[in-house]
Amino acid sequence: MTDHEGERRDLAAMLQPLVRNLIAAELPVLAAHGVSMWGYAVLNALDGEPMRTQAALAQSIGADKTRIIGTLDELQEAGLIERTPDPDDRRVRLLAITAKGRRVRRAVQSAIWANEDRLLAAIPEPDRAAFLRVTRTLSALPREEIVGSHEPKA
Amino acid sequence: MTDHEGERRDLAAMLQPLVRNLIAAELPVLAAHGVSMWGYAVLNALDGEPMRTQAALAQSIGADKTRIIGTLDELQEAGLIERTPDPDDRRVRLLAITAKGRRVRRAVQSAIWANEDRLLAAIPEPDRAAFLRVTRTLSALPREEIVGSHEPKA
Repeated sequence: MTDHEGERRDLAAMLQPLVRNLIAAELPVLAAHGVSMWGYAVLNALDGEPMRTQAALAQSIGADKTRIIGTLDELQEAGLIERTPDPDDRRVRLLAITAKGRRVRRAVQSAIWANEDRLLAAIPEPDRAAFLRVTRTLSALPREEIVGSHEPKA
Repeated sequence: MTDHEGERRDLAAMLQPLVRNLIAAELPVLAAHGVSMWGYAVLNALDGEPMRTQAALAQSIGADKTRIIGTLDELQEAGLIERTPDPDDRRVRLLAITAKGRRVRRAVQSAIWANEDRLLAAIPEPDRAAFLRVTRTLSALPREEIVGSHEPKA
């Protein structure tokens, strides 16, 4: 159906090494700001959002709750987030990014975006915009939609 | 520089869950054909290529040589590949896909492509073609080009 036969390759096979390399490009930026990859994901999730429970946060970034606790401890010790008990339910911990956390997040993000812009600069403009549009659309698809009713033909 | 401010997110953060879900969609297809993810990568690398050494093959699919040996054993036992000593250097093992291996590879691939086509069918045509074009371009960039001279701003 799609018009890319001949040099066609599986999407996952093309995207996986790209993602691996993009992450490798982020690691020195994160290290320079003393933030882990999960820590950065937490800052991204909390920035602009109101307070959230740890459970909701873990789910929103696709981490398990156990793993995230160490990350939250580190971020809190570094003064990048705050954890306060929910006044409505003292067993629930509400989370918020601090002003310092927001500054660190912005600094990391702008270095990452600068690198992405460098890579995307080689792509002609209409293609670049289309690529980002489709990437957003596909990345927003729920897992069930991608794995779907996909029946092997065997 | 790029025109996707506002709802902009890091490329890796968008692409990583997409890749994870695309791989999840491939697993039942692979299982139905009795091939592992690495086994499928090997079949893809050998199909259409002349014989290759194990070292070259491991490098071409981004696997380490140790890991790939078990995969090659499985593929050979299933009759999907052949390993023969290089007549010029008996220490080197040359690899080739068999006719059966090629059939299995094609069956897996067409099921994977059918699922990709289903996902891409929702994308308007010019965007779809541009997305695939840019994905191919970016995935062909060498790692050094992506990680690059990327200096954190800290």
